[in-house]
Amino acid sequence: MYTVGTEEDIKDMARGAVFLGSGGGGDPYVGELYLRRQLIEGRAARIAKASELPDDAFVVSIAGVGAPTVLVEHLVSTNTLLRLLELSEKHYGRKVDALISAEIGGANSMFPLALGARTGLPVIDGDGMGRAFPHLEMTTFSVYGCPSTPCVLVDDSGNVAYVQSTTDRIAEDVVRAICASLGSMVYGCFYPMSGRQAKDLAVHDTISHTLEIGRRIRRARESQADPVADLLAFLNDEPNGRHARELFVGRIVDVRHETRDGWHWGEALINSGRGDEPEFSIEIQNEYLVARHRGRTVTVVPDLIAVLDAESAEPLTAEMLSYGQRVRVLGYSAAPIMRRPEALQVFGPRMFGINEDFRGVEHLVPRASSGLT
Amino acid sequence: MYTVGTEEDIKDMARGAVFLGSGGGGDPYVGELYLRRQLIEGRAARIAKASELPDDAFVVSIAGVGAPTVLVEHLVSTNTLLRLLELSEKHYGRKVDALISAEIGGANSMFPLALGARTGLPVIDGDGMGRAFPHLEMTTFSVYGCPSTPCVLVDDSGNVAYVQSTTDRIAEDVVRAICASLGSMVYGCFYPMSGRQAKDLAVHDTISHTLEIGRRIRRARESQADPVADLLAFLNDEPNGRHARELFVGRIVDVRHETRDGWHWGEALINSGRGDEPEFSIEIQNEYLVARHRGRTVTVVPDLIAVLDAESAEPLTAEMLSYGQRVRVLGYSAAPIMRRPEALQVFGPRMFGINEDFRGVEHLVPRASSGLT
Repeated sequence: MYTVGTEEDIKDMARGAVFLGSGGGGDPYVGELYLRRQLIEGRAARIAKASELPDDAFVVSIAGVGAPTVLVEHLVSTNTLLRLLELSEKHYGRKVDALISAEIGGANSMFPLALGARTGLPVIDGDGMGRAFPHLEMTTFSVYGCPSTPCVLVDDSGNVAYVQSTTDRIAEDVVRAICASLGSMVYGCFYPMSGRQAKDLAVHDTISHTLEIGRRIRRARESQADPVADLLAFLNDEPNGRHARELFVGRIVDVRHETRDGWHWGEALINSGRGDEPEFSIEIQNEYLVARHRGRTVTVVPDLIAVLDAESAEPLTAEMLSYGQRVRVLGYSAAPIMRRPEALQVFGPRMFGINEDFRGVEHLVPRASSGLT
Repeated sequence: MYTVGTEEDIKDMARGAVFLGSGGGGDPYVGELYLRRQLIEGRAARIAKASELPDDAFVVSIAGVGAPTVLVEHLVSTNTLLRLLELSEKHYGRKVDALISAEIGGANSMFPLALGARTGLPVIDGDGMGRAFPHLEMTTFSVYGCPSTPCVLVDDSGNVAYVQSTTDRIAEDVVRAICASLGSMVYGCFYPMSGRQAKDLAVHDTISHTLEIGRRIRRARESQADPVADLLAFLNDEPNGRHARELFVGRIVDVRHETRDGWHWGEALINSGRGDEPEFSIEIQNEYLVARHRGRTVTVVPDLIAVLDAESAEPLTAEMLSYGQRVRVLGYSAAPIMRRPEALQVFGPRMFGINEDFRGVEHLVPRASSGLT
């Protein structure tokens, strides 16, 4: 058990959450503001390992649902999250013992911490994907047997909805429809689970991981060391099945964004400065889904792609990419629990319309060294 | 207290429900089938006056939500309605004492009777509009202080949603969105109310009215009397503020239908056979909303417009109108509770984009006689 207790912690965590967001999940800034207000009021979020929980503890996920661009414009009200918790306890007929993030990448890393800080409930060091994904069914919780519903949804105006669906794919459609009908931003309580389920189904230690990634980028920046070299050394953890590679260094020569049905879609083209022909591409559907070097896939979903500003090493969401920017692109293997066949059937490449089988970044880019170019 | 207990009752009631549907509300045939099955199993629906209920009784509305065309194609499952009732009692934390229709016009006249027959719960002789309307906020319940939520929604596949909204306009948007995301047909339990509220807020005696209208059309047909003359004599009930007029007799010379966003929209043009220029028009948005004779409004929402087949006097929904058909058109005043200023602010002409103030059919067509032409 430790606390996320300083402004520096929160900034580090937000930075790490963008890194793990693989371009998506929205800007954690809104949640960050909220969490900082809790700190000013003397409250810190307590982080607990899932293994510290009793098997019969009652754990829920707290998440914002809405287009990332809406999320950025939207301020979170304390009362809304407290009301969500109160209504959820009433709906489930149980006191909540701990919170867990469904999605550590992006803004949804922050809401459980904010509510945890406000209420004193511990937040589990883990989440349901170790990254960001756009759908409720795309979590290890859902894949391995803990559905997202019964869920509780609230908005800032006092509207409430409860959904219980037969599949999480249907839950996604219904929740998304409710969200759109309420003006595109709701907060939800999802994946009610036991302590045992939290231990068995989560991607573990992702809050610690997020904090450490954010910290390392900050410290390397302060000491003028190479942050990417330091990150790669940290992220490459072969005994635990984690592999990281620097995929490309270059300048963004084209970036196309569109919002279709509330989803962000686009493509970024990058070259290394020699010649006009783009050498490197990243396809975006909310998240960075596939990176290709001269047309050859070098990282593909569910493995993560991180785009860092070349000067500051600040991780960039898809919305932040702009023409002319110098960037460094990293590929990072998803946690092993995210790469099993049953998981790939829900969030492997083909589920996003990418017509290829999943291959891990360690096989696509065998050499564990910095720099493909 | 009486029962709707014979096949003839059900057919009469379905016929009357189309008459009061003012062109909308969908074909009651689906509910009729269901209700007939209950009869075959020896069950009849008991109809009670609201005044027979204790003030502290607990009353709910049961309704199908979906585009009328979907309603027609959809068979109602007994289990779905029973599950809806069970989940609703659990959600409200109270046993239901009686059912009431939200919308007596069209298909939603039947579902409370069907569930009442199945469970033995009495069905209140009344509803929330005395006609059909497309939105949840367009009921006397909602206008006079009993909101549609908390409501419970189910589909045939086992999906469930609960909504509690700050206004019934928002409830309408959210429920419609959920309906669309679940494939366009859900059943809901709405307007939880006390016996006192049922007495004060309902349009009363509309089940009896529906049955009587259906019966009179059948009997006039059997005795080869003029059904319209008989109907006008019955419907003109000036002491109770009800007025009916025959507006036009003619042949449909044009009928345009469109489904936009799940709503039926169209216009029917009718002439009396002398010359080509259409003399009479009916504008349709799910329901018949305004009838005009040579451009002059003769009946406008919330007053009712009924289109009867000229041969059989069978009432026709908007979907049933076709080119060349000979029809008789009636205007019928809405119940006085539907015509108060606070009601007209919710379902008066301007709420449907008709740029005129409401005037009652008795003022628009002063002469209480058959035949304008």
